Amino acid sequence: MNQPSKSASTVKDFLLSALTEENRFQNTEAFKNWFTRKKQENHFSVEQIPFSSLQQWYFEEETQNLKHASGRFFTIEGIRINTNFGPTQCWEQPIINQPEIGILGIITRKFDGIPYFLMQAKMEPGNVNILQLSPTVQATKSNFTQVHGGRLPPYLEYFLDRRKSRYLVDQLQTEQGGRFLRKRNRNMIVEVDHEIDILDDFCWLTLGQIKKLLKEDNFVNMDARTVLSCIPMPDSLTFGKQSMEDILQESGTSRLDNFSQSLLGSLFCHEERACKTTDEIISWFTELKTKYHITVERIPLKNVKRWKRTNMEISHEEHPLFSVIAVSVEAGTREVFSWTQPLLKEPQQGLLGFITRKINGVLHFLMQAKVEPGNIDIIEIAPTVSCSAVNFKCQQGYHIPFLDYFLNAAPQQIRYSAIQSEEGGRFYHFLNRNMVIELDEADAIDLPENYIWMTLGQVMEFLKHGYMNIDTRTLLSCIGFKH
Amino acid sequence: MNQPSKSASTVKDFLLSALTEENRFQNTEAFKNWFTRKKQENHFSVEQIPFSSLQQWYFEEETQNLKHASGRFFTIEGIRINTNFGPTQCWEQPIINQPEIGILGIITRKFDGIPYFLMQAKMEPGNVNILQLSPTVQATKSNFTQVHGGRLPPYLEYFLDRRKSRYLVDQLQTEQGGRFLRKRNRNMIVEVDHEIDILDDFCWLTLGQIKKLLKEDNFVNMDARTVLSCIPMPDSLTFGKQSMEDILQESGTSRLDNFSQSLLGSLFCHEERACKTTDEIISWFTELKTKYHITVERIPLKNVKRWKRTNMEISHEEHPLFSVIAVSVEAGTREVFSWTQPLLKEPQQGLLGFITRKINGVLHFLMQAKVEPGNIDIIEIAPTVSCSAVNFKCQQGYHIPFLDYFLNAAPQQIRYSAIQSEEGGRFYHFLNRNMVIELDEADAIDLPENYIWMTLGQVMEFLKHGYMNIDTRTLLSCIGFKH
Repeated sequence: MNQPSKSASTVKDFLLSALTEENRFQNTEAFKNWFTRKKQENHFSVEQIPFSSLQQWYFEEETQNLKHASGRFFTIEGIRINTNFGPTQCWEQPIINQPEIGILGIITRKFDGIPYFLMQAKMEPGNVNILQLSPTVQATKSNFTQVHGGRLPPYLEYFLDRRKSRYLVDQLQTEQGGRFLRKRNRNMIVEVDHEIDILDDFCWLTLGQIKKLLKEDNFVNMDARTVLSCIPMPDSLTFGKQSMEDILQESGTSRLDNFSQSLLGSLFCHEERACKTTDEIISWFTELKTKYHITVERIPLKNVKRWKRTNMEISHEEHPLFSVIAVSVEAGTREVFSWTQPLLKEPQQGLLGFITRKINGVLHFLMQAKVEPGNIDIIEIAPTVSCSAVNFKCQQGYHIPFLDYFLNAAPQQIRYSAIQSEEGGRFYHFLNRNMVIELDEADAIDLPENYIWMTLGQVMEFLKHGYMNIDTRTLLSCIGFKH
Repeated sequence: MNQPSKSASTVKDFLLSALTEENRFQNTEAFKNWFTRKKQENHFSVEQIPFSSLQQWYFEEETQNLKHASGRFFTIEGIRINTNFGPTQCWEQPIINQPEIGILGIITRKFDGIPYFLMQAKMEPGNVNILQLSPTVQATKSNFTQVHGGRLPPYLEYFLDRRKSRYLVDQLQTEQGGRFLRKRNRNMIVEVDHEIDILDDFCWLTLGQIKKLLKEDNFVNMDARTVLSCIPMPDSLTFGKQSMEDILQESGTSRLDNFSQSLLGSLFCHEERACKTTDEIISWFTELKTKYHITVERIPLKNVKRWKRTNMEISHEEHPLFSVIAVSVEAGTREVFSWTQPLLKEPQQGLLGFITRKINGVLHFLMQAKVEPGNIDIIEIAPTVSCSAVNFKCQQGYHIPFLDYFLNAAPQQIRYSAIQSEEGGRFYHFLNRNMVIELDEADAIDLPENYIWMTLGQVMEFLKHGYMNIDTRTLLSCIGFKH
């Protein structure tokens, strides 16, 4: 390809931003001071309350489903699952039902040729540290239609009208299939080319700065991570290896570390060097979708077997899995808002991890086809390990394939490790350790039928068509090219 | 790319076969004689019968759904639809429910380096001409599990065991979203490299021969067409234009006609010459999926409003749309099989058509995002026009966008035109005229929001991820490269 296409120049711009940690408005330290000041300026309080103290939320008489008086937002209901996948083939559980497509969106604008991302310091009641770095917009359909009676979210117009911005990323992506019933959001990145008002809790950051913040625990929220995961990465289609060298030079990056070079190799690799061709991956996925079935029947919350409700929580009779709780929230600076709402509490930490390993000299990622009740179409592709309540499951002797590789990882194998939070608007203190480890090229491992090695280029190709679940995407967003 | 990848050599082999009409076993005329003999040898009779004469099939007391005594095969039930797409936003109708993934598969084997396809002369009760050319295998899960009590379909083992063949195409693809509830099949092409027994009703044909037969009315059945539509076409990823010239030479093809050359241009075109990039097409699709919703509620057949049942058919009170009928079937040569079953009768011919047109010198296809009640995920991509009961709708003054282009097409605009049958195991005499027309480069047309121009390469790229509906695929299968 001689002249760069629209896609190629977009990929190049994103890459330049990812390699840039300098910021013409504020360096990362100044940003952090600003962020800390935001925390101090604002008044926040989140308290667990009895269900009977919920305002506007109530247990519907007939079903005991937990609902909002407006009939909107989300409901907590029950489901009964039957599947032939995994060790437990039949169970019942509560689930969040929110059958609307929301918008998670980030505005970008180029300064000196480098795209900056408009990020928000945003509080969510379930966040372990209250304030996290969030996308420009997190809007549910209830927001557009103003069920709250509140304001229309700022900047939303740039995501609703193609004449106001250029849409660079615009994909439907799913949320947690174990907690949400068929929920997904429109993940968007749009570009403006003129000055826009920057509101109080917002600031411009380069992608390089955000990638650096992703190395810290619980700093960048889930909504930001899923949007960032959709950013196209460079490959041999968009531009050649030589242009890649030029871009590195242009960004003042003299040398990438070894793992970053492996990542680039995994993006630029031609299909014949990958373990599986695209068609073979589709065949693997097709076979599993044909083999595995799952039926998910919606049932009244009151009928969910083995779960009990007190005035403080709805929880499993034996297992310390998630529970449903209620909180009261106060937040604001001058004007104080207060409300009550239910949240899903996840008492124990989970683990999301990629095993990576060079095969034929090319870095591959070990991916897992996973059936979850909230999935829209039976199976999505999860990371090597995606396991909630790790300690409990280890104590009980659950067999989680490949978990031991992460629990026993030697420091020199660890390419990424940080704790990240799930969405604080629905989950209370739901934390997962996110890890990427690299095995030796010689460490061959046997794969169960629902695991497959993919190059990073292949992972990104399937991601844009919606195959990758939220756990895969959150891990991908944490991957950066390091100097 | 210097050395051909696995994908590239597969694409090349398929292309060689598509350009080959010579057959070392029998030329096309000899094949046709064989096919005619098959028709004569066999005894077939299909007769419409009253529902009360159905054996094994019955109307369930509570719902009046039409079911098989075994509880398997399919059922005819009712659905109630609510959508914000299209002029009719709320209706009820009968639908076929068959919640299983079947296998439609073709075995290939190379002779003198050219892949041959193992095709079957197969009768289906709903076929207007009884016998049509069918894939090697059409198997429902009921077939595997032998609900019939009959034989296991021959050759099925090559599609169930990767050790017995090489899987070249293996994709989940949907069926008619207006007639089937979330039905799809695994579409497979597998290669064997050793001699296999050729049973009585089977024969080897090159892809070029099959493409030639696709120019005739009602010769190649729907199941064969959907499998053939998944065959990867050449593009700049798999090999360059120069290798393309070599392949044409290798196959003895001196010159392709103009439209075939346009098709190749539409496959090899770089993204920057296409109207929309892949990401822009995904964005278009995402926006429509966010905007349009459809809820499909399963209801008892007895409750379906505006449909009435007599002992001979279930039909709409006013409109000559499809109806449900029952038939008794006798078929066989030495051994005669007989059975009864319901079918969907489609009394009027439909029309499926692509408008194509060069834009910036590159041939583009006009594609339509369409919401149908049986779709698995709201929207699939249909051809420019996909319209049942054309005469009735014209008389009633329905507005079908772009239909007039086909009804008034000048002979020199028509690139393909033939009548093709829908699946004769479920549909009785359901015929659609399939057309491809080419407009002048100067004929600009305004597009409603749910239409988009795509290159043939883009159509094929989205096809393998399951975006293209059966109508799009059946038209694509008819496209060939002509000398």
